[in-house]
Amino acid sequence: MSAAAAFRLGFDVELYSDRPEVEPLEQMIGRATKGSFEDVDALATFAETVDVVTLENEFVDAAVLEEVRQVSGTPVLPSPETFRKIGDKYSEKKTFEEAGLRVAPYARIGGKEREEDRGHGHDLSTSADDVSRFGEMHGYPFLLKSSKGGYDGYGNVTVRDDAGARAGFASLGGTEGHELVAEAFVDFTHELAVQVARNSTGLVVYPCCETVQSNHINVAVRSPALVGERIRREAQEMAVAAMEAMDAVGLFAFEFFFTKDGELVLNESAPRPHNSGHYTLEGCATSQFENHVRAVCGLPLGSSALVRPAAVMINLLGTEESDGSFRHVEQALAEPFGALHHYGKLQSRPGRKMGHYTLLGEDPEEVFARAMQVTEGIEI
Amino acid sequence: MSAAAAFRLGFDVELYSDRPEVEPLEQMIGRATKGSFEDVDALATFAETVDVVTLENEFVDAAVLEEVRQVSGTPVLPSPETFRKIGDKYSEKKTFEEAGLRVAPYARIGGKEREEDRGHGHDLSTSADDVSRFGEMHGYPFLLKSSKGGYDGYGNVTVRDDAGARAGFASLGGTEGHELVAEAFVDFTHELAVQVARNSTGLVVYPCCETVQSNHINVAVRSPALVGERIRREAQEMAVAAMEAMDAVGLFAFEFFFTKDGELVLNESAPRPHNSGHYTLEGCATSQFENHVRAVCGLPLGSSALVRPAAVMINLLGTEESDGSFRHVEQALAEPFGALHHYGKLQSRPGRKMGHYTLLGEDPEEVFARAMQVTEGIEI
Repeated sequence: MSAAAAFRLGFDVELYSDRPEVEPLEQMIGRATKGSFEDVDALATFAETVDVVTLENEFVDAAVLEEVRQVSGTPVLPSPETFRKIGDKYSEKKTFEEAGLRVAPYARIGGKEREEDRGHGHDLSTSADDVSRFGEMHGYPFLLKSSKGGYDGYGNVTVRDDAGARAGFASLGGTEGHELVAEAFVDFTHELAVQVARNSTGLVVYPCCETVQSNHINVAVRSPALVGERIRREAQEMAVAAMEAMDAVGLFAFEFFFTKDGELVLNESAPRPHNSGHYTLEGCATSQFENHVRAVCGLPLGSSALVRPAAVMINLLGTEESDGSFRHVEQALAEPFGALHHYGKLQSRPGRKMGHYTLLGEDPEEVFARAMQVTEGIEI
Repeated sequence: MSAAAAFRLGFDVELYSDRPEVEPLEQMIGRATKGSFEDVDALATFAETVDVVTLENEFVDAAVLEEVRQVSGTPVLPSPETFRKIGDKYSEKKTFEEAGLRVAPYARIGGKEREEDRGHGHDLSTSADDVSRFGEMHGYPFLLKSSKGGYDGYGNVTVRDDAGARAGFASLGGTEGHELVAEAFVDFTHELAVQVARNSTGLVVYPCCETVQSNHINVAVRSPALVGERIRREAQEMAVAAMEAMDAVGLFAFEFFFTKDGELVLNESAPRPHNSGHYTLEGCATSQFENHVRAVCGLPLGSSALVRPAAVMINLLGTEESDGSFRHVEQALAEPFGALHHYGKLQSRPGRKMGHYTLLGEDPEEVFARAMQVTEGIEI
């Protein structure tokens, strides 16, 4: 969707992908360079053919990006320096904490020695005990996460007791030296999100929206969020502060917990257009995708104002194994101010994100109910 | 831009083009079938590879389309029957006149005998005299047009006197049997336009907008038009009646003159998304392009409601021979609710349409002034 915005602004787009399957953009432009995100030579050769490199995922190593930029001479934005600050869960938490932003209690556990450990007796052997100690300090249950990427397909586990602490440490690769992060549970009433675009011309912050979950799956987003205006503004301010702490260029999304105690906790960030901001395509004067393109191309940023008082986005998930075509979309399409997005994926599976539907209107609650209703019967 | 809407709805798009240069869509999808629009075999072979064929120009012969549909078995929409009704300027006028719609006084001059001429003594040899007779009846100056396509590069001439009538007849190929249409001048204060989408699921009519000319070049469009609400509604009703008279499926644009006497005259139609409706991309709930795709794919049509009270579109024309890149767009991009569209053309020439700029706001006159101001310095 960033590519579509880029085309409209007159840019050419080239794709580097590490996935063997045909990507939606590849489907559209009929070409792609396929390679590993660890292959500096291949990445640099690709980078030499373009004016600026940007990323739609956060899994490329900052050191690789630095080398690609150096070898190719092509700007990489967001910058490797920014990626370094949020390249793993521990660094991300630390960056935000040091910027004075409230994050959930956390601790780094295991992994290799870091610069900051020198002289502090960082000891791998005691790490399994550290997991239990975290539980004693911050209470069970809590989350244990792989700091960077997954391990054997596992990204995080919920730790419920001391035995679970030891089992989790092992299953996430802690015993093999994989760095983990323990993170206290946050008792929240709402999950909020804010997108921010930033470059040397300025900064634009989107409305504070709300992600609606069902069984830990993000089923919908509504903007503005159904929390007080003061809270929405505070989330926007925290997102801006995080953006500045990273000296970030591009479009970033920030996710927050609004706790039962009425506090905002910064949960995580995504250094790219994010599902929580898909509603901005029709919902805002300038979409997150267009501002991402503008930001990394050094253009002035566009307004993030809502075009109607309320916007709701429903994720359309696969309902069965199929060729990815949508059925029973008539009601959704017939809705005034309803927009259907098919991602061009050629294979549907139950639960796979296949597209989304946006509905604009006057009242967030009414629009949400209506959007759920007209998308209910869609089969994919 | 129809292709972009189609991609978003999950369709694949293939392109058949008769132009040797790289088309903007070709630039995007990296492929195209090149061939003549008279080559039934090539067109039918192409048509067999897709589910529905639609057109972005009105220059393909209805008989060719009929044959392509028959040979390939693929639906062609708008239909050949509709194209037949408006395939040349004379048929178009006659179709609208027979539907009870006001058109400028006109007469067919020269050309081959038609079905309707049989027994009415249609006589080619008197045709040059007919041109003068039209001038005597409806006054000079008037327009003499080639009924279908151009002749030796000339599509129409302004006839100012009897000598000009004879010269025009010759220069437009009348003496070689080329069919011409004489058309009385209409003294108008505004040029209006209305887009209509229609298929078996229903019909959607867009707001009545206004095309702003300078030196016979369409420099801008504002929606709604700066005429009274009654006139705007009448134009919408006429556009709907024309659509039904053609039994049209697709998205059509209709252009009207609003005369000094306060009358609406239907000037011409385009059987496709049209420059007058480019503002609908950001200006309306559903763009003309998306409704074109929905119409020809048999999907329910989307709302044509304006998202803000006023929308203005400025055509961005080439200012010099260049590679087509835009310069000094910062002011236009910085405008809230401003959207820049680059058509991806790789060669600029003075006057060539290279893109457009849309600005939304509260008041049509203010938005128009602002849009003109922020695009003034753009160099292409």
